[in-house]
Amino acid sequence: MSTPTPQRARSAAAKQQRERAILDAARALGADRSVREVTLTDIAAAVGMHKSAMLRYFETREQIFLALTAEGWEDWSAALRARLSEFTDVTEVADGDRGAIAAVLAQSLVARPFFCDLLAQAPLNLERNVSLESVYAFKTVVLGEVAAVAAELCRLLEITERAAVDVIATATSMAGALLQMAAPGTRLRTLYETHPELAHALVDVEPQLTRILTALLNGMPPAER
Amino acid sequence: MSTPTPQRARSAAAKQQRERAILDAARALGADRSVREVTLTDIAAAVGMHKSAMLRYFETREQIFLALTAEGWEDWSAALRARLSEFTDVTEVADGDRGAIAAVLAQSLVARPFFCDLLAQAPLNLERNVSLESVYAFKTVVLGEVAAVAAELCRLLEITERAAVDVIATATSMAGALLQMAAPGTRLRTLYETHPELAHALVDVEPQLTRILTALLNGMPPAER
Repeated sequence: MSTPTPQRARSAAAKQQRERAILDAARALGADRSVREVTLTDIAAAVGMHKSAMLRYFETREQIFLALTAEGWEDWSAALRARLSEFTDVTEVADGDRGAIAAVLAQSLVARPFFCDLLAQAPLNLERNVSLESVYAFKTVVLGEVAAVAAELCRLLEITERAAVDVIATATSMAGALLQMAAPGTRLRTLYETHPELAHALVDVEPQLTRILTALLNGMPPAER
Repeated sequence: MSTPTPQRARSAAAKQQRERAILDAARALGADRSVREVTLTDIAAAVGMHKSAMLRYFETREQIFLALTAEGWEDWSAALRARLSEFTDVTEVADGDRGAIAAVLAQSLVARPFFCDLLAQAPLNLERNVSLESVYAFKTVVLGEVAAVAAELCRLLEITERAAVDVIATATSMAGALLQMAAPGTRLRTLYETHPELAHALVDVEPQLTRILTALLNGMPPAER
């Protein structure tokens, strides 16, 4: 009579639980260092599985991080839409300075450095080393969240959906890029801080992202045009 | 009596010539495929050197591409400033719609897809696998070109230097990010094109970058504020 091997998840629930453990381990490692520095071997060690066993749950390390990117979009979108729903006086926002909306956008991203790291990694590295099925699933989640956030921005700012999508693309891509340039906690950051002639290389993400998004929102044409 | 080995560059001029050959080979490979897909072995094969011999000229493949990124900044900056110098009626540009300047910015970047690829790769990958001396040299070139372009934008748009630097950061980062998302010539692009439900994942870089930069420039506060 054979007894079940503990390494092998027999039921769907157990499989899901195992996937969750892998994702959580990858998230903890990625948030602690940076996504770039986390290997499949690191994740396997953290979750206490053999690398070959882990590949039964995820194709590649990129698929693990792409799944976490999708979760990051869901989390960011929900939190941002909750914040945006607090703006009730649409006319005031649409006609006045849109800096308050820009600040909420910037804060919501800067508060999620791991998500920003993933946002930078996704189009360059993560989407390029997974199956098309994984890209399809990922894009479906992202497009859904972009549409949900865009609807809220259209309501508040009275801009077209296309303009709202441009705002979201800029906010997420610039958050990713600026965080990479800021390179917090790295020897690059130390280099910039210790060489006054490189002072302009020092990126302070939140104020710069807020300035850029404020100008972008203020310059967006109204939906009627 | 010993004869000089042809593999060994004896003089400074010969060394420089060899470095140039390596850079040109890397540029040709990177422009043909994408930077991501070019290995040190590929470059060595293209230039007809052993990999170990090539490492006497460059530390890593990332140093080769970082040197090409610096050259890309010099080339783009010179071409852009030449185009911007054609705008002579400053008042018209500063007061009117700034879309013409945005279009020039977008065109100048989209016309340089290899540079855009490098712009996306530099902060994420290239700057992370070279010596601090190489980063220092790279940043010095970039900051010089940013200052030169910013001076031209300040003159034309009557915005602050900080605002001009924000414009340059957005233009270059978004050109890099949008090109990665557009993923021309890849199986990702084919996936988006063949699945109508993913139509919103199809990025058309030049019009989107032009729209974003137009709104950004129109929303930038004047220097006096």
